[in-house]
Amino acid sequence: MPSIRGSSAAGLIFVISPPKICCKMFEYMEKLIAGFPQDMHQAIDRLRFIGVMPTDMQNVLITGLGGSGIGGTIAAEVLARRCSVPVCVNKDYGIPAWVNTHTLVVACSYSGNTEETLAAAHKANEAGASIAAIASGGQLLATAETEGWVSAKLPEGYPPRAAFGHGLITLLGLLQGAGLYNDWDATDLHRVADVLEQSQETIRNTARDLAEKLQNRTPVIYAATGLEGVAVRWRQQINENAKMLCWHHVLPEMNHNELVGWAGGDKRMGVLMLRSEDDHPRTALRMNLNMDLMRKQTDCVLEINAIGTSRMERLYYLVHLGDWLSYYLAVQRQVDPIEVNVITELKNELARH
Amino acid sequence: MPSIRGSSAAGLIFVISPPKICCKMFEYMEKLIAGFPQDMHQAIDRLRFIGVMPTDMQNVLITGLGGSGIGGTIAAEVLARRCSVPVCVNKDYGIPAWVNTHTLVVACSYSGNTEETLAAAHKANEAGASIAAIASGGQLLATAETEGWVSAKLPEGYPPRAAFGHGLITLLGLLQGAGLYNDWDATDLHRVADVLEQSQETIRNTARDLAEKLQNRTPVIYAATGLEGVAVRWRQQINENAKMLCWHHVLPEMNHNELVGWAGGDKRMGVLMLRSEDDHPRTALRMNLNMDLMRKQTDCVLEINAIGTSRMERLYYLVHLGDWLSYYLAVQRQVDPIEVNVITELKNELARH
Repeated sequence: MPSIRGSSAAGLIFVISPPKICCKMFEYMEKLIAGFPQDMHQAIDRLRFIGVMPTDMQNVLITGLGGSGIGGTIAAEVLARRCSVPVCVNKDYGIPAWVNTHTLVVACSYSGNTEETLAAAHKANEAGASIAAIASGGQLLATAETEGWVSAKLPEGYPPRAAFGHGLITLLGLLQGAGLYNDWDATDLHRVADVLEQSQETIRNTARDLAEKLQNRTPVIYAATGLEGVAVRWRQQINENAKMLCWHHVLPEMNHNELVGWAGGDKRMGVLMLRSEDDHPRTALRMNLNMDLMRKQTDCVLEINAIGTSRMERLYYLVHLGDWLSYYLAVQRQVDPIEVNVITELKNELARH
Repeated sequence: MPSIRGSSAAGLIFVISPPKICCKMFEYMEKLIAGFPQDMHQAIDRLRFIGVMPTDMQNVLITGLGGSGIGGTIAAEVLARRCSVPVCVNKDYGIPAWVNTHTLVVACSYSGNTEETLAAAHKANEAGASIAAIASGGQLLATAETEGWVSAKLPEGYPPRAAFGHGLITLLGLLQGAGLYNDWDATDLHRVADVLEQSQETIRNTARDLAEKLQNRTPVIYAATGLEGVAVRWRQQINENAKMLCWHHVLPEMNHNELVGWAGGDKRMGVLMLRSEDDHPRTALRMNLNMDLMRKQTDCVLEINAIGTSRMERLYYLVHLGDWLSYYLAVQRQVDPIEVNVITELKNELARH
């Protein structure tokens, strides 16, 4: 490995916000999460894309990282059930070799300045792909304007992960506008947001209860394959808001490996089994059997049943519940749910090279 | 959630093999891992596919789980750098809606009886896809013969995860035979196996050293995006051979979320940073900065530099090192590296429904 001069992170540290700051930040994050259904409504009403949608697509690549990329992961899973071309995700500087003139590349970066996403969009442009950009500003929207890419502007001023109410709706709207699916319209999505708003108190209570049960545990999040994006959202929100490490896996895949590792599992772990009534019946059976086994290793195995009359409602229910859980875990641990100083410092350090 | 009658796992338990059995099983697993380079040579020489390769492909889906599916994950990453159509993986009963007459579906199941893979292959057949099957026997090969699918037979008698020396080569050979890439031939692959064989003592020493340093820690495995499949292989082997829980993530993605969670990281974790000299330079820089940060939370941050003159050599070096690490962790913990009783019991229980 060639040494990289001056790359030591001697200056990078995990900064802990003082209690006074934490209290203010609890209020701020609470307001952001509580506003999630309203953000969805606004995003549905704002759906406007500048530029012309590509035709004759053979595949789609959604490129983006972190809180801006998770929408792509979830959208790809939603579309895998209904779309006639592969919708893949990309979370890197490079792009796959198959990107060409028949590819729609959607670049998602809330700030518009994520270096990986800018690099990937640039390469996709060189490969002749049709490009669409979703951002609140930054270089990505500027380049979109210069290059004549399709683009959608998100409202400014959010921490990227908290703009998810806007981000996923905008992405789904863009993919629908590109003709990739047509079984969801604005009315359906407004209804999803309405249901979420009406059940918010119940969701908060459930989240508070889960946080209590998870006290001093490492969360291990499981879901069926088609809901992996939701499990990843939970993982990310717990990482960023509650400053905790945790991990996830999916069924049935983990039945072929991680389940064996549970022989070494113990009470330090808290299992979160995310379930949806339309999970494959064999996967649902696996979940029952798995939870019984895990209960022999830890007394904290929590079953979370998604509530909703459609898959989209259940998906958003789980996303919102996970957001609230991460908030209550932050309150429990008395850590500032807003600050991600270490990412900012890392970016500053990277910018020096 | 509808209750599923009789699905209680009251009878399912984690069985611990007695010391005498463990000793025999250490020898058996040691022999299997030591034979990995020879398995590769044999697989290269045996590359024979029955049936006609499809033409006019627009996309590829490799479906398979656990030790049979990891080859697909790694092959998809290898091909993403060189193949003109998307190569996707699938680890579920269902298949994506885009599978059609222009899709090559490769079904991988070492036993040939994995229920998820059989279900997926059946659905792919209904969707009109061209299907290829890789198995040592079972229903998958029988169906391939009946239906006239392309097929390749793996040698029998291995634990599925230990047949990986055969599995990945066979899969790569099949994908090359289907015209998906052409920059690797048998001579190149034999050379990779030769290098692995020659450096096996060094690799074993490195693995032994890593296992010692990881004692009583939860391994956390990191790699660059394009080597995620290798990180997953490490995770699976540690799960199954050493009966330990562990997790993985990739850079740069984890810099946008999990790194923040490291504020809550501690000495119980042992970081394994898998590196390759052709990692993107920005990702390499991120790895340096990340390791410095993680060292503030735990004194066990281990850097593993892949050795090899080509990417394929480095990839196989890492796979082999991970296999040996999982073996030495099993010896350290005095657990039977062969048994996966809980998976067998789970399958028996599932078969009752």
